[in-house]
Amino acid sequence: MPEEQPQQPLTYANIGIDFEKRQSIVEGYRGVVRGDRNPRVLGSIGAFAGMFALGSTYKDPVIVASTDGVGTKVKLAALMGSYESIGHDIVNACLNDLLTTGAEPLFFLDYIGSVDLPAEAKVSLVRGIHEACDAAGCVLLGGETADMPGVYPPGEFDLVGFVVGVMERDRIINPAGVRPGDLLFGLPSDGLHTNGYSLVRVALDVAVAPEKAAADRERLNRYEEELGMTLGAALLKPHLSYLSQIKAAMSAGDGSLVKGLSHITGGGFEENIPRVLPPGLGARLRRNAWSVPPVFRLVQREGGIDEEEMYRVFNMGIGLVIIVSPEDAGLLRSVLPEAVEIGEVVPAVGDERVVWE
Amino acid sequence: MPEEQPQQPLTYANIGIDFEKRQSIVEGYRGVVRGDRNPRVLGSIGAFAGMFALGSTYKDPVIVASTDGVGTKVKLAALMGSYESIGHDIVNACLNDLLTTGAEPLFFLDYIGSVDLPAEAKVSLVRGIHEACDAAGCVLLGGETADMPGVYPPGEFDLVGFVVGVMERDRIINPAGVRPGDLLFGLPSDGLHTNGYSLVRVALDVAVAPEKAAADRERLNRYEEELGMTLGAALLKPHLSYLSQIKAAMSAGDGSLVKGLSHITGGGFEENIPRVLPPGLGARLRRNAWSVPPVFRLVQREGGIDEEEMYRVFNMGIGLVIIVSPEDAGLLRSVLPEAVEIGEVVPAVGDERVVWE
Repeated sequence: MPEEQPQQPLTYANIGIDFEKRQSIVEGYRGVVRGDRNPRVLGSIGAFAGMFALGSTYKDPVIVASTDGVGTKVKLAALMGSYESIGHDIVNACLNDLLTTGAEPLFFLDYIGSVDLPAEAKVSLVRGIHEACDAAGCVLLGGETADMPGVYPPGEFDLVGFVVGVMERDRIINPAGVRPGDLLFGLPSDGLHTNGYSLVRVALDVAVAPEKAAADRERLNRYEEELGMTLGAALLKPHLSYLSQIKAAMSAGDGSLVKGLSHITGGGFEENIPRVLPPGLGARLRRNAWSVPPVFRLVQREGGIDEEEMYRVFNMGIGLVIIVSPEDAGLLRSVLPEAVEIGEVVPAVGDERVVWE
Repeated sequence: MPEEQPQQPLTYANIGIDFEKRQSIVEGYRGVVRGDRNPRVLGSIGAFAGMFALGSTYKDPVIVASTDGVGTKVKLAALMGSYESIGHDIVNACLNDLLTTGAEPLFFLDYIGSVDLPAEAKVSLVRGIHEACDAAGCVLLGGETADMPGVYPPGEFDLVGFVVGVMERDRIINPAGVRPGDLLFGLPSDGLHTNGYSLVRVALDVAVAPEKAAADRERLNRYEEELGMTLGAALLKPHLSYLSQIKAAMSAGDGSLVKGLSHITGGGFEENIPRVLPPGLGARLRRNAWSVPPVFRLVQREGGIDEEEMYRVFNMGIGLVIIVSPEDAGLLRSVLPEAVEIGEVVPAVGDERVVWE
């Protein structure tokens, strides 16, 4: 088909996939991780796989792994050019899932898919990822950055994280021990974390229609009295990591304080709390136990969203739920004074495993 | 802003993110993995993270991990509805990267991002992933399926894999031992594997313009004499796993046969072979040592692609390179008769680390 042949020979560089550009991105990544000298990391950057020395101190090690994305919060990040903060989001979203098992995080890998994301944006993403890993004592062991023409629209990207941790088998947090009467404590979230953004974007009509990007940006940059900050700042607050709080709770007393941990992610309370309850048990929760942060009320009001739907989709101000025995409530409160008692474990009635008082 | 409020209350279901649909997809996934009873997998499907018992038999275990995508081969898979086979692609692409270190694969996690990929397509993807994991004795430990309105165009998806393996520290394949004069053997690929698809699509003008999807499909379904199959079948052949061949080579003789393993992925020979050579060493390769499969020649001819560019982008028929000492060539040939001697290790001249005879 000579009529379809390009004037100059077809090359990867001609279609925008430039090996030299790729090399410069890799150099940018190297700049971010420069100075890391973790003796547990073996091999070199550029190897086909990352290697992490587990060591021989574990008696009966269990490897724990989790993968997650940050949902369409990436669209807000792309619109606002907020790459570093979304890097924190992906790490902490994955970390919290891992931590619910009781594991200690070891390392993290990232995947960035896009078609034309600028090199600086990619390096900022990796800088944010590296910072969040560092804060968690977790190694950024590797990753993949993919050019995907036609799979992503211009300017959009997806961000995927994988985290691996380890623990002794006899230290797994086993929800089988949860009993009726056990108490649920909630730890405050810092806003929406990484869930419900497809609903938020429609509710606020931002980052939905690419043709009004400039107007959306203006709206997001406007100061909102009720939020005490701009709308954009409130929506882009990074997902909190609960590592230090979970560590504190797990090492309190004789080490058996924590009976279950639920990360309140997509699906809110109703999907996430039953994930750590034995069959036949449910939770009775009190909405008035805590005050819902204003960002949720703003989204609800502007979108005309029912109260029930809000609690099905969002964390509503509670990012992690800790289950403890009633006799341990005082110990938990002394270790984590910010924890709020939000309800208790009850026998489930039919399929309804989460009921609200 | 009452003028923006929808007629009925805004819900996730109204914007196409339906919890019940999600539940039915999860049920589909459960159907795929049903019957798996691996005692090393702890916890349950639905937990926040997957848990895998490493056991206490390793003296000094090293955890190895790798992440990869399948590039824009996903666009061809979407166009042809070939989901199960692309599931094999993602697993084998990741596996081969892992295997270059000498590790034994333990488990795999997947990420599927899309906006409206039908439930059956998602379940087919996971079925393919599960089959390929099974074939490698690797557990499908978890995954994430994300609805990403606005991040992916309708019908497109991205597929990311993450594999974890383990090995004894003293069994790491360490390319530091590679010497000038060592021989490079190539194992046959089964076509393009998962690399170069953005160039292939432009070269053949398929899966580039969504408006001519029907014509593209027709073209891909046409039998091509020189390929002995349809163009679509040739382009969608899954990435080969080299697990059994690597295992055979690694356990041959006294276990020290394999000095280096290079997976010929994106960047072809020139980027991938130096990844397993010590600084200062290069490779001299002979193009006439093997015959290039016809699919590469068809792509080259139709795209008008230079010979040099072909070897920079594609595997050209060699999917894995094994480096051995010259005195072990006979042993390698006896274990892997399909291996082709393609060149030797030489001192590198300047930056040119791969030269062609």
